[in-house]
Amino acid sequence: MDHKNEISGGYEHKVQYYETDQMGIVHHSNYIRWFEEARTDLMDRLGFGYDKMEECGILMPVLSVSAEYKHPAKYGETVRILASVTEFTGVKLTVRYVVEDAVSGEKKVLGETRHGFVSRSMGMVRLKRDYPELYRIFSDLLEQGKANGT
Amino acid sequence: MDHKNEISGGYEHKVQYYETDQMGIVHHSNYIRWFEEARTDLMDRLGFGYDKMEECGILMPVLSVSAEYKHPAKYGETVRILASVTEFTGVKLTVRYVVEDAVSGEKKVLGETRHGFVSRSMGMVRLKRDYPELYRIFSDLLEQGKANGT
Amino acid sequence: MDHKNEISGGYEHKVQYYETDQMGIVHHSNYIRWFEEARTDLMDRLGFGYDKMEECGILMPVLSVSAEYKHPAKYGETVRILASVTEFTGVKLTVRYVVEDAVSGEKKVLGETRHGFVSRSMGMVRLKRDYPELYRIFSDLLEQGKANGT
Amino acid sequence: MDHKNEISGGYEHKVQYYETDQMGIVHHSNYIRWFEEARTDLMDRLGFGYDKMEECGILMPVLSVSAEYKHPAKYGETVRILASVTEFTGVKLTVRYVVEDAVSGEKKVLGETRHGFVSRSMGMVRLKRDYPELYRIFSDLLEQGKANGT
Repeated sequence: MDHKNEISGGYEHKVQYYETDQMGIVHHSNYIRWFEEARTDLMDRLGFGYDKMEECGILMPVLSVSAEYKHPAKYGETVRILASVTEFTGVKLTVRYVVEDAVSGEKKVLGETRHGFVSRSMGMVRLKRDYPELYRIFSDLLEQGKANGT
Repeated sequence: MDHKNEISGGYEHKVQYYETDQMGIVHHSNYIRWFEEARTDLMDRLGFGYDKMEECGILMPVLSVSAEYKHPAKYGETVRILASVTEFTGVKLTVRYVVEDAVSGEKKVLGETRHGFVSRSMGMVRLKRDYPELYRIFSDLLEQGKANGT
Repeated sequence: MDHKNEISGGYEHKVQYYETDQMGIVHHSNYIRWFEEARTDLMDRLGFGYDKMEECGILMPVLSVSAEYKHPAKYGETVRILASVTEFTGVKLTVRYVVEDAVSGEKKVLGETRHGFVSRSMGMVRLKRDYPELYRIFSDLLEQGKANGT
Repeated sequence: MDHKNEISGGYEHKVQYYETDQMGIVHHSNYIRWFEEARTDLMDRLGFGYDKMEECGILMPVLSVSAEYKHPAKYGETVRILASVTEFTGVKLTVRYVVEDAVSGEKKVLGETRHGFVSRSMGMVRLKRDYPELYRIFSDLLEQGKANGT
């Protein structure tokens, strides 16, 4: 496992039958869900899972999502989803995803989500001031992402 | 439209592409969601939608579900879901579903859900005493169901 | 109903309970499914639904998708999804979506999907030469989209 | 790990955010999908996954499903799904499921699916005659299920 995987987790997902459609491939909407799986897994492993964030009263709503479909994943395959932080300003966060075949490494889907930070009362949050621990986590992820050339 | 349809709503659902699986038919889990669509539609039309119920602080958790698959629904088809109350004791409710082709009337799936009633604080609720309006609605539905021989 | 709605169909979708997540809003992946609903509805009304396309042996795979989330849709609401063609070259198609509250018109989500055309044998297709009827439909949609300033 | 787990696989599933609904719990339709995950995982481990079955031209359509909801699973939890064969006649198969918290063992949901066997041409199949290898697998599973008192 290389350093890049170590950061992004190399989260694995086994394609389920209920994720296929009648074209015999994974329905394109499911990759958006896999992005979320990889993102929340990443946060979990960094000690800042949704539970911890909810406890802190902070939410990370999705502002936008995009996906580029290269090769369809199929039932029976296992994919690896690499998530890396490509932008972090303290008020906005961008996460990038590479979905690839866990065995062959063939690129299936590339994607990106952008997030804001809001407190439970839905006011905007400045991480550096309000949640310095979380600020440091994302800053570190951004540095690691740069170091790995993503 | 006969009397039975009038009660149960004859709720219609157009089969969506994302509801199919690689067998070329609707994935069997989706019918459980369609039961919910028909049930909430029925409650809406009776003036007691989820919004009203939440306002009253009452929830109707699903205790059990069952479905019998007769003929698969396919993409491009529209189904009609008939929901009728077959049992109501004031503390428990049973709703029965018939999913049929909207054009041919072919029976696709038969199903049933059972529900309890709890208040927001998750305490059990006695509808007759605590929510007489809702009690009357379900009692009426049960009578109509009986009259229609369901 | 203005001309734009006439083209794009003003497809309506009632938000379902199973489409919500624990944040109390529609899960962001579902809008991608609603784009598909509006797109297939548009094709249906133009006489070129999936059934017809499959009959012709032609498929319209999704090459990319993007969505920008403005305001969350909630359970109990009905949304209208306006789909319009913003680009068509004969080998590539771009469809744009506006998801808005059916009552207030509040913009919920903006989105876009890009598609290619392939024959069953997965070879690329030139619509103008191979499927002139379908070519005319998309060309007309593009013109109408331009006329409406989308 | 006890013998029972060894048979049924003790398949684990991490609850995903997109599987929750606005009640803050896993939407009840998703357990039906988890049954499928555990069932296909069991078949995989026995060397008779969907791929192998498709290769043999045999399908195992779901004839019925039922679920009894005991305690809701929540985001952040991991569940274990125990699948065991409780009936097998050579033409019909019944699989039983216990969904429990992976840590505490608390029972979340109990369920059952019934299946038939059909060949690609949708004719009914007699496993003993047509697919003796698969017949032996299910017969063994039934014996093991009995031995474990399920």
